[in-house]
Amino acid sequence: MILSAPQIIQKKRDEIPLSAEEIRSFVMGSIKGDIPDYQTSAFLMATFFSGMSLDETTTLTKAMVESGERLDLSHIKGPKVDKHSTGGVGDKVSLIIAPLAAACGLKVPMMAGRGLGHTGGTIDKLESIPGYRALLEKEEFIRIVNDVGCAIISQSEKVAPADRKFYALRDVTATIECVPLITSSILSKKIAEGAEGLVMDIKVGSGAFMKRKTEAVTLAKTLRAVAKKAGFELRSTISNMDQPLGYAVGNALEVYECIEIMKGEDLNPYGLASLDLKELTIHLCAQMLEIGKVVKNVAEGRKLAIAKLKDGTTWKKFKELVAAQGGDITTLEEPWRYMKADRVIEIKAKKRGYVTEMHSESIGRLLTVLGGGRNKVGEQLDHSTGFFFHRKLGSMVKPEDTLVTIFANSKTDLAQVEEELRNCIKISTAKKTAPKLIVEANVK
Amino acid sequence: MILSAPQIIQKKRDEIPLSAEEIRSFVMGSIKGDIPDYQTSAFLMATFFSGMSLDETTTLTKAMVESGERLDLSHIKGPKVDKHSTGGVGDKVSLIIAPLAAACGLKVPMMAGRGLGHTGGTIDKLESIPGYRALLEKEEFIRIVNDVGCAIISQSEKVAPADRKFYALRDVTATIECVPLITSSILSKKIAEGAEGLVMDIKVGSGAFMKRKTEAVTLAKTLRAVAKKAGFELRSTISNMDQPLGYAVGNALEVYECIEIMKGEDLNPYGLASLDLKELTIHLCAQMLEIGKVVKNVAEGRKLAIAKLKDGTTWKKFKELVAAQGGDITTLEEPWRYMKADRVIEIKAKKRGYVTEMHSESIGRLLTVLGGGRNKVGEQLDHSTGFFFHRKLGSMVKPEDTLVTIFANSKTDLAQVEEELRNCIKISTAKKTAPKLIVEANVK
Repeated sequence: MILSAPQIIQKKRDEIPLSAEEIRSFVMGSIKGDIPDYQTSAFLMATFFSGMSLDETTTLTKAMVESGERLDLSHIKGPKVDKHSTGGVGDKVSLIIAPLAAACGLKVPMMAGRGLGHTGGTIDKLESIPGYRALLEKEEFIRIVNDVGCAIISQSEKVAPADRKFYALRDVTATIECVPLITSSILSKKIAEGAEGLVMDIKVGSGAFMKRKTEAVTLAKTLRAVAKKAGFELRSTISNMDQPLGYAVGNALEVYECIEIMKGEDLNPYGLASLDLKELTIHLCAQMLEIGKVVKNVAEGRKLAIAKLKDGTTWKKFKELVAAQGGDITTLEEPWRYMKADRVIEIKAKKRGYVTEMHSESIGRLLTVLGGGRNKVGEQLDHSTGFFFHRKLGSMVKPEDTLVTIFANSKTDLAQVEEELRNCIKISTAKKTAPKLIVEANVK
Repeated sequence: MILSAPQIIQKKRDEIPLSAEEIRSFVMGSIKGDIPDYQTSAFLMATFFSGMSLDETTTLTKAMVESGERLDLSHIKGPKVDKHSTGGVGDKVSLIIAPLAAACGLKVPMMAGRGLGHTGGTIDKLESIPGYRALLEKEEFIRIVNDVGCAIISQSEKVAPADRKFYALRDVTATIECVPLITSSILSKKIAEGAEGLVMDIKVGSGAFMKRKTEAVTLAKTLRAVAKKAGFELRSTISNMDQPLGYAVGNALEVYECIEIMKGEDLNPYGLASLDLKELTIHLCAQMLEIGKVVKNVAEGRKLAIAKLKDGTTWKKFKELVAAQGGDITTLEEPWRYMKADRVIEIKAKKRGYVTEMHSESIGRLLTVLGGGRNKVGEQLDHSTGFFFHRKLGSMVKPEDTLVTIFANSKTDLAQVEEELRNCIKISTAKKTAPKLIVEANVK
């Protein structure tokens, strides 16, 4: 006899393992509307406290996959590896890594998300390029990946609808930070999207969902174990998110930062080098290349990635990708043409000292004040707005130095933004070492 | 700045004490519909795991009181004390204790509930008396209490609507068994109903919400502490619910069992004495009399209660109460007249041995199969149906002895009921001592 919804909730609450049948019936009941949202959210909170075994997490993941359509990517020739990040501030790695890995010989059929709350989304960033189409039919998607080597589209609503529903509820019931739920959310989408290999970038720090390394390690191990049960290889890097990645936060601005790197420029027009962004991209790409067996080991992968970034093939691939998806590549050659924020304001340091704190979650939330991020699913964005930071953690500043350039539209209360921005960035006289970018290179 | 609903849920989840303002805004938001049910149920589950301090529980209780109307019972002259039970099977104490305590000199303005799931409700039992009106206007209620000494009405929907909403959600999200939530549920209603003193009968055992004594003691202490903060005296008895209280389970049948006791009969027509029901009623009444300062101590209270049960004044008060509330008292004199079940069937023991188990929760659920209990709020009942048990735990039985008399209507599948009933009652050759009725006389 199958248990009722309250009985399944009670079992989870009392830490009694659920059977596969119980998990499946709950997921399907929730999706069909037989189980009301108030029971689903009680189940999610019970899971937050009681946890789930690997078997339960695997069943939950599979049930979510079964709740929707599955993509068949067998018509894409060659090794297919995707990359996924748990979300951060200024995390623009996907924009570079897709053409880079393609330039190195991988196939990258990437399905990415939109920004919500303090985290940005790859699709929003790409949509700052005029004409870019993130919604492609399956046939066109496969054709572009076969022709160019990569394509970046937004996740289909038909893929893992149970995850969509669970995630929306988790977002408003304080049940995001739960390893089995995060695992099933990520993997159900990736499995339904036909993943064969996946490199995870798990963020840790003030701007990430996970604040502590131990939680990130647990997530990495759970993801790996459940992926293995589902039949594909996954590996995880843990990287620091105590400050934005690179210098730019904001959709068009982030694309611009990536363009400078793909063009092979060592310094951007402000005279700054995006070393952390470049290093993390190369590191994650090397992991992808090893999983896809394009190279024998990670060291070889690094060499190949560095070469393909320098020799212009990545930049060429990126333009091909954008053109294939309808984007106007003339703007990419002269990116300032489409960075048309109404107002560009420089914020001075006003103090002498070292940057010891950059609260990235608050910075991410401030982007929504500029209109460049969203508080609710479906909100329209102003892609032109954002922040360009001129200093990283550990940097020295003088009072007259520019700390941040703000790109805002005419509606923004700049005095308020400046004040809140100053609260996010701490300048102290005592120097503090910058946090290590790659916290754990490959979690075993 | 007041926190958003997800932030309040997260704070509770993380075991950070909530401020009075936060608790109040959550309760009011939930009642107004600003906070959707899926957030309320996540909050309830987080509370199940994280608990609440006495201060938080007191604030929650007060917020629930403030969510609705408050009754002013100051026009009732004399000491007012109420009794409340956490719910059991065959628990008909209220029917006797209200007229008994009134006969002893207390004023008992009792507001009682209806049955749900395996537990019965005082109002349903009284409504088996033709004409009984459980819904009275405040003025009539006060007049009857002043005239008769007691009245028993159903709880107004206007009293503590937040509790009504929270309870309905808890019932279907496995969050019933949670001390701060039980405490605020009971006390919010009693405070809004103008309680000055309250005697709690906390049930423990197979037919109760609480299965263990330690939980019951925690509940008793929490109730006492929160009541004290709210300005009234409360004391708790913990009593056993491993078997139905008395012999009858079913609405009209239970009224009948009480009538026999109030008439001063030592044995019912089956030749059985309801010793447990009588003892618990006298014990709880003595507690009420001491709280109301009608007597100096509990021993004196017991003596007075025993006398008032024996000399016929309780029986007289009961008839006055029923008459004042519109009930047909001629049926009370000849109760078999309104016990008009279509079929009366005797179930024989078929075995020799001792009764070692009577699973009261299952017995309570079986009553709903007979139509005498409800699975959903609002379901109509068949008051005539029920069970009359002929044995208690520890009793000896011979194969030809009647174990249970079933009162059923023509729609019932009697073979199924008999089979399930036999599963509820275990007869073993080894004798097992009957459980102690009063587990804890007065929890300090």
